[in-house]
Amino acid sequence: MTNGARDENVTLEALCRGDVRTCARLLTRIERGEEAVIPLLQALYRAGGNGRVIGVTGPPGAGKSSLISCLIGAWRRRGLRVAVLAIDPSSPFTGGAVLGDRLRMVEHGCDDGVFIRSMASRGQLGGLARAAGDALTVLEAMPWDVILVETVGVGQNETDIMRHAAVVVLLQTPLGGDEVQAVKAGIIEIGDVYVVNKSDHPAADRTCRQLREMIARGSRLRPDRDWQPPVIKTQAHLGVGVAELVDAIDGCFAHQNADPEAARRYMSDRARHRIGEILRDRLDRRLRSGDEGWLEGSIEPVVSREKDPYTVVAEMLSRL
Amino acid sequence: MTNGARDENVTLEALCRGDVRTCARLLTRIERGEEAVIPLLQALYRAGGNGRVIGVTGPPGAGKSSLISCLIGAWRRRGLRVAVLAIDPSSPFTGGAVLGDRLRMVEHGCDDGVFIRSMASRGQLGGLARAAGDALTVLEAMPWDVILVETVGVGQNETDIMRHAAVVVLLQTPLGGDEVQAVKAGIIEIGDVYVVNKSDHPAADRTCRQLREMIARGSRLRPDRDWQPPVIKTQAHLGVGVAELVDAIDGCFAHQNADPEAARRYMSDRARHRIGEILRDRLDRRLRSGDEGWLEGSIEPVVSREKDPYTVVAEMLSRL
Repeated sequence: MTNGARDENVTLEALCRGDVRTCARLLTRIERGEEAVIPLLQALYRAGGNGRVIGVTGPPGAGKSSLISCLIGAWRRRGLRVAVLAIDPSSPFTGGAVLGDRLRMVEHGCDDGVFIRSMASRGQLGGLARAAGDALTVLEAMPWDVILVETVGVGQNETDIMRHAAVVVLLQTPLGGDEVQAVKAGIIEIGDVYVVNKSDHPAADRTCRQLREMIARGSRLRPDRDWQPPVIKTQAHLGVGVAELVDAIDGCFAHQNADPEAARRYMSDRARHRIGEILRDRLDRRLRSGDEGWLEGSIEPVVSREKDPYTVVAEMLSRL
Repeated sequence: MTNGARDENVTLEALCRGDVRTCARLLTRIERGEEAVIPLLQALYRAGGNGRVIGVTGPPGAGKSSLISCLIGAWRRRGLRVAVLAIDPSSPFTGGAVLGDRLRMVEHGCDDGVFIRSMASRGQLGGLARAAGDALTVLEAMPWDVILVETVGVGQNETDIMRHAAVVVLLQTPLGGDEVQAVKAGIIEIGDVYVVNKSDHPAADRTCRQLREMIARGSRLRPDRDWQPPVIKTQAHLGVGVAELVDAIDGCFAHQNADPEAARRYMSDRARHRIGEILRDRLDRRLRSGDEGWLEGSIEPVVSREKDPYTVVAEMLSRL
């Protein structure tokens, strides 16, 4: 056995045992986009598939972090081990992660049944999606009962990340305006459970009504699911409505488990998505690497304008 | 001949004649990502290759639009026809184009030897790169002598767009701080001609010196080019230094033309880049379209975790 393979086995065993420091180190390497972790990810994928992956998304300021903190508390009291992966928006201008929110989760910092990790990307959003998928591969090979993945609900890439989740909780705040925020953010369709947080706000009831109407109209991305998404009111800072939310999430999982066909659809949708995510990322790296020897035969006719690049690409894709 | 092919020929002829309204309409369709324009783009690519493509980039606020306005004036006085393609940063949060800058170019609005177009993307930056490449394909099939492409120098995607340009002008403003802005923006390496705008600023000389030192150290992306990038001081709002800049750009083109090998390298680098750009975009569309029948055989073993998705992707890419 080579040294590399031996190190890999040691890491794999540590992760399967639930070693949090090994996990944190590996996630850092994933975030950096290190190629060398791929064999390990391959082994972890084959070993894994543990844990319920739950997505939490919603517009900025809706109170996602507070609500997640409440959910962690509720699951911990039931003896469940919880991992949280928070995907921060990656601004091409600052490259910065919004770390302030993370502070609200400090109360769980000393609990070794909880793992919280924030991920951001300084470069490609595409790279972030791949990194998030890789991170979930790691977490799902570990003994976590619940794996929460949090995104700010903006943009196609973040919606895509939610496709890893078996159950998606979509968070709303009541607005003074006429429109549900998630409609603006383009994420209204992806919820399995809707939450109106800050439900003491005068507009909360109207927001709930609007959400129920939308759900009734069936404007959801997942029409394949025979599940009526509930709308739940919470006040995360007081813990109000959290028990009900936990029950609703459990209900959604129970509903999925009762329908093997639906569970199957989620699994293959996710596999398809994961393959696409990795394909996009690998191709991107290949194209950016400068090592474009594989393109070589195609360059000449495009330079001479005998052939156009669209034709060359169509020929390539037909071989995929 | 079908109606579609006839329409295509009419459009092609109008563009080759220099019809600006046809061009504007086609660019709108390109921006929308209409698939139906691809056959036309293929024909335009084969017909095209006219015009010198010059890139202008630099950090926000460096005065790119004012300088471009001066350049347009200088070229027009020499009787050249000029097209400008301005690529605006696409924020995933607002999706908005910064249109204010465009107003400074209004003085050229009534001149039919000038065409100015601003492009922004509400979605993918990747899609914007493809759209910019398509727009250049259109402009290069038209009788423009000079085609300027402007980007705000932030992010990999914008740097990539500059790979279409035969000559890249990198704009700087003097800073009070210690660091050249373009270093921060990660675009220092791509310049063929460096411009320090607002050269009446007390720090202008120091910025020039820093740039010259960097150039001397040879920290450039294009070491293949045997060209010493000049550093030029301008005050765009007064037109100071513009004639010198025009001469420097001409000098860079003359240098390239004197070295057929260098011209060849630019052409094949650009073809390679263009193929990659389209490949990435087509694959992205395929993956997002939901029509993923082509993946079907790969899904099952990934769902059952017999195979990991990295292995599936490696198999696919080996067929490319």
